[in-house]
Amino acid sequence: MRKIIVQKFGGTSVADTEKIKNVAKIVINEKNNGNDVVVVVSAMGHTTDYLVKMAKDLNNNPSNREMDMLLSTGEGVSIALLAMAIQAQGYDAVSFNAMQIGIVTENVHSKARIIDIKTDKLRKNLNEGKIIVVAGFQGVTEDGEITTLGRGGSDTSAVALAAALNAERCDIYTDVEGVYTTDPRVVPTASRLDEISYEEMLELAHAGANVLHPRSVETAKQFNVPLRVRSSFKTDNLGTLILGVDKMEIYKPVAGVAADLSQARFVVCDVPDVPGQAAKLFSNLAKQNISVDMIIQSYARKVSNTNDIAFTIDSSDIDKTLETLNALKPELKCGEIQVNSEIAKVSIVGAGMIDRPGIASTMFETLAEQGINIKMISTSEIKISCLVDKTDAQKAVKALHDVFDLSCDEVAEVKGDLPDV
Amino acid sequence: MRKIIVQKFGGTSVADTEKIKNVAKIVINEKNNGNDVVVVVSAMGHTTDYLVKMAKDLNNNPSNREMDMLLSTGEGVSIALLAMAIQAQGYDAVSFNAMQIGIVTENVHSKARIIDIKTDKLRKNLNEGKIIVVAGFQGVTEDGEITTLGRGGSDTSAVALAAALNAERCDIYTDVEGVYTTDPRVVPTASRLDEISYEEMLELAHAGANVLHPRSVETAKQFNVPLRVRSSFKTDNLGTLILGVDKMEIYKPVAGVAADLSQARFVVCDVPDVPGQAAKLFSNLAKQNISVDMIIQSYARKVSNTNDIAFTIDSSDIDKTLETLNALKPELKCGEIQVNSEIAKVSIVGAGMIDRPGIASTMFETLAEQGINIKMISTSEIKISCLVDKTDAQKAVKALHDVFDLSCDEVAEVKGDLPDV
Repeated sequence: MRKIIVQKFGGTSVADTEKIKNVAKIVINEKNNGNDVVVVVSAMGHTTDYLVKMAKDLNNNPSNREMDMLLSTGEGVSIALLAMAIQAQGYDAVSFNAMQIGIVTENVHSKARIIDIKTDKLRKNLNEGKIIVVAGFQGVTEDGEITTLGRGGSDTSAVALAAALNAERCDIYTDVEGVYTTDPRVVPTASRLDEISYEEMLELAHAGANVLHPRSVETAKQFNVPLRVRSSFKTDNLGTLILGVDKMEIYKPVAGVAADLSQARFVVCDVPDVPGQAAKLFSNLAKQNISVDMIIQSYARKVSNTNDIAFTIDSSDIDKTLETLNALKPELKCGEIQVNSEIAKVSIVGAGMIDRPGIASTMFETLAEQGINIKMISTSEIKISCLVDKTDAQKAVKALHDVFDLSCDEVAEVKGDLPDV
Repeated sequence: MRKIIVQKFGGTSVADTEKIKNVAKIVINEKNNGNDVVVVVSAMGHTTDYLVKMAKDLNNNPSNREMDMLLSTGEGVSIALLAMAIQAQGYDAVSFNAMQIGIVTENVHSKARIIDIKTDKLRKNLNEGKIIVVAGFQGVTEDGEITTLGRGGSDTSAVALAAALNAERCDIYTDVEGVYTTDPRVVPTASRLDEISYEEMLELAHAGANVLHPRSVETAKQFNVPLRVRSSFKTDNLGTLILGVDKMEIYKPVAGVAADLSQARFVVCDVPDVPGQAAKLFSNLAKQNISVDMIIQSYARKVSNTNDIAFTIDSSDIDKTLETLNALKPELKCGEIQVNSEIAKVSIVGAGMIDRPGIASTMFETLAEQGINIKMISTSEIKISCLVDKTDAQKAVKALHDVFDLSCDEVAEVKGDLPDV
């Protein structure tokens, strides 16, 4: 039986007709390797921004349902154009939107989750030798309502299709060459990883590495779909393969270093040390849909019998969080509420650290040598994160990258629009 | 039971967000009249041109299936934006594409005909008080393939929806104020008709008046849907109502004058006068999908026993027609083939001419007085067309408009991009 490869190309990879021709070449190349190919594409370059601007011109607060109707047209354009570009090279291709295939989602607009993917139409067309081009980012409910999948949507479409079709692999083509040991703009000797485990990739993604949305990695992990991240423009290397830890050879305790500058820290001071206070606090934040990342509760002070509770959230939620906390203040009987958005979370990630003691202490010592003050610490089995001053972030990443021996000999060539560190 | 009004807005009426706001006002106004409203829209302004240009960049000869996939996204954008604009005014609106509703067509791409329209989703949403915005121009096959309806498609969508829903009326909003007695740019005193019959409108449309595609008028006639043509930008007059001849009062023998400059005349000389020659000729043209309009066969010449066969076709088919005729020449044993594209078909149309003799002779005399030579004549019950030199077309239209007393006192104000006469 022929193997199925799912390929996904993002908006920058199909930004204009020249780039679409380039994608057609990559697709045909995979077909010529003897594989069946299903291609998932996003909307062209700035299409989504353009559509959102028109929507805002008409309605300050457009309904999510109509936004989904509007935005789903973006992939409708790119799938048809890519199919035409493939046909122009003499290959049989056919495009389908989510409704035609049956990429069934829950009935939630703007951030729906995929429930099921029908494969009969896909299998029939693959059996006829066709290359299939599928609209990413979109779905359809059982009632025929059009939905979109929200952030990381097209990657998730691709991984879910690969899982449904039992594909050999899902290749995510993007504008970077793979997953790096850290942001190459901060550390020019950052090296590209040939392999990384789902777990490490998830921790790196949560820690601020922007290559893949955690959601698509989670889906890949759940269905054990090997995922390859590689460049649409520089195809001479194979990028980074993300797969189950059981299948990979672990050679270094730390796989990568990441910094996340988008967080803010809250400290709720002098919370009386009676049971249920933390539960009250965090359940109210959850009700407001505010995601909390790191949490630290100090030991209760003997004299006042109060705690300080510190936690971090995404900076975009500062106002909502302040509002929630102020409303809770009388009930919590707490003291002052402090906010600090001049912080950064610096993390080291690596499945190899599980069985090697001393990684954490090396991290803390390295930061201390650099004179960097650690404000909070959180750990998982394969990740250690330290909260530091934002101004110390670059210095911290460089020193950690160095001490854990992640640099390669060559200076990485970086393109694309990664977030500043 | 509340009455249903179907409204249709073309591409120029939704060309930008300001114009979409204007359309929202017109829609809401009809809703406030106490009617249920279903709105059909085309793609925004130049969207289709833009999409076609990208397609041609990628493929000289894109498949009709993928072109339909591509072009159908145009209405996907305009329906969502119009629904948002209506919601911004505090009214409940919901948009649907053809696939969601079930506007079922035959399985032909780029010029499909509508077979059936499911009304359950429409009725359910109307009963909930919602204004429904529907994508025109597109359909879906029983197999879930996306089709488009070809020329006049959105008007046809609107009329077919009106028929399926038993609507009170279908209002076609456009960039002209209605149907005129002739092109107001040729005859500034041309008057807007308050009423015209389906049959007259059909003859006018076929005779070159570009207000409505004959296809939508035919559908309206078939299902007896009253059709109103009116301006999106100047809503202080009601435009022109098109309806069954039994319902209207006929006050003038001639309703309008039109000129069609897009035709070319062929003369096939010296065709031997044996049976089946004309059949052979025209069946071969039909096989090539060439529509023939006027046909004249001369009396057989006594000496040579041959005919001349003259006919007109659309100028865009000249090459294809020449090819077909040249291939047939040995079989037909005919003489020279002449082509003339410097011609115009000038027509007078009016249901009122049925019972009034002398209309044709008045037409011929009027043209003669102007020194205009008539090359061919064809007639129907409610239309007389004369083929003249292209350079005589304007003079002919003016004289006929005058002699049949069609001018109004005011000079018509004309906007929009009508074809040159």
